[in-house]
Amino acid sequence: MQHLTIVKVGGKITEQPELLKAFLKDFSLIAGDKILVHGGGNSATVLAEKLGLQTKMKDGRRITDPEMLKVVTMVYAGLVNKNIVAQLQKLRIDAIGLTGADMNLILSEKRPVKEIDYGFVGDIKKINAPALLELLKQNYLPVIAPLTHDGEGNLLNTNADTIAAETAKVLAFDCNVRLIYCFEKRGVLMDETDERSLIPILDFELFQHYKNEGMIQGGMIPKLENAFRALASGVKEVIITCASDINTGKGTLIR
Amino acid sequence: MQHLTIVKVGGKITEQPELLKAFLKDFSLIAGDKILVHGGGNSATVLAEKLGLQTKMKDGRRITDPEMLKVVTMVYAGLVNKNIVAQLQKLRIDAIGLTGADMNLILSEKRPVKEIDYGFVGDIKKINAPALLELLKQNYLPVIAPLTHDGEGNLLNTNADTIAAETAKVLAFDCNVRLIYCFEKRGVLMDETDERSLIPILDFELFQHYKNEGMIQGGMIPKLENAFRALASGVKEVIITCASDINTGKGTLIR
Repeated sequence: MQHLTIVKVGGKITEQPELLKAFLKDFSLIAGDKILVHGGGNSATVLAEKLGLQTKMKDGRRITDPEMLKVVTMVYAGLVNKNIVAQLQKLRIDAIGLTGADMNLILSEKRPVKEIDYGFVGDIKKINAPALLELLKQNYLPVIAPLTHDGEGNLLNTNADTIAAETAKVLAFDCNVRLIYCFEKRGVLMDETDERSLIPILDFELFQHYKNEGMIQGGMIPKLENAFRALASGVKEVIITCASDINTGKGTLIR
Repeated sequence: MQHLTIVKVGGKITEQPELLKAFLKDFSLIAGDKILVHGGGNSATVLAEKLGLQTKMKDGRRITDPEMLKVVTMVYAGLVNKNIVAQLQKLRIDAIGLTGADMNLILSEKRPVKEIDYGFVGDIKKINAPALLELLKQNYLPVIAPLTHDGEGNLLNTNADTIAAETAKVLAFDCNVRLIYCFEKRGVLMDETDERSLIPILDFELFQHYKNEGMIQGGMIPKLENAFRALASGVKEVIITCASDINTGKGTLIR
């Protein structure tokens, strides 16, 4: 089976031109087939503020009303995605920037309203694995923005960590998939304020323990839950690491 | 040879949800292979204004400084392009939204500074015909935003009329290409304020005559020059018409 590395890069890296440039250089050196999934991060909040829109978050997820959907579509699918593509082209990597609407790549459904109305936020229903495999076969590098569609004409804001994990899962049938979450920290930390507290290897039992102790918290919990689900579905390896360490083997290995 | 229709739709249509919806419905009914090229229009100006940026135009072309480049990237490649793609998916047309950076589709060079510094504006050098033909072969409908890249990591703002004409020209080697420019007017008018003054058929001699008389002016001149160049390069038919008339045969036939 072909080897495939799916990298999810966090929003903060994409916001800093020098960090992004260095990351894309490192990313381009990974051997074999690759898919890049990027977050949006703070740029959408900054643009929203300039336009007089208030950003409301709930458990790390953005409440996405129609005006905020326009903002994230502009920032994620436009500014961030196309700049990554142009820079990869400079590195002579034939990138193609996509949302879940393009090629009907990721179909999702608007999250049902329970206690919270998240607005135009999508939960993934189906990923078009054949389309991605065909792009890889033709030596394109898909760069996926965190937007999906509902098949009814609506774009939906969708968590990039989840897109990366779900994509890894469906492609695990055809490829040996390695999933790397990279961001500005060294990996999973026992103490978020102390970079020396890196957990080098994390299994599900240990994760439950740290979670119950309150040592792993916040946005790291859904990220790790995604990681364990991916492993359970046949993904070979999940690594959480610093953007500058994607080729060094450092970080947290999830198993 | 396969039949291919390339439609360029003007910015104003894309800005009005009801007009866009009606247009995409009509567009979806065109038989055979299709490519859609869209303009950006006034939305970029509106967003720029909200962000406190002043829009400067010269001969209908936008002066594109680094901040304005961000604006057009957000609006053209993000908001406009992805909404068109999502709506075509609703119509069960497998659209894929692209800029010239994606798949290295359109390589351009930053316009040299002469009397005017247009900033990040690109003049087309090379269109990747094989990539477009392969997408069509796989039954995808390319939706192209008016942005290209220079291969050095920079996106460049590029006129949509020109992208449509140049794409038509390179694909004329492999396909019977029909090029349709559609917008909010009925076609080429002798008097821009009078919809009854439609010119039904226009050849190069007549165009020169009307141009010299000052009856054809403004943005219509480069559009028509693009049209005649496309015909000279083997494009079978060029039509300038109203967005609601793309299937009726009305409008101005350029020959």
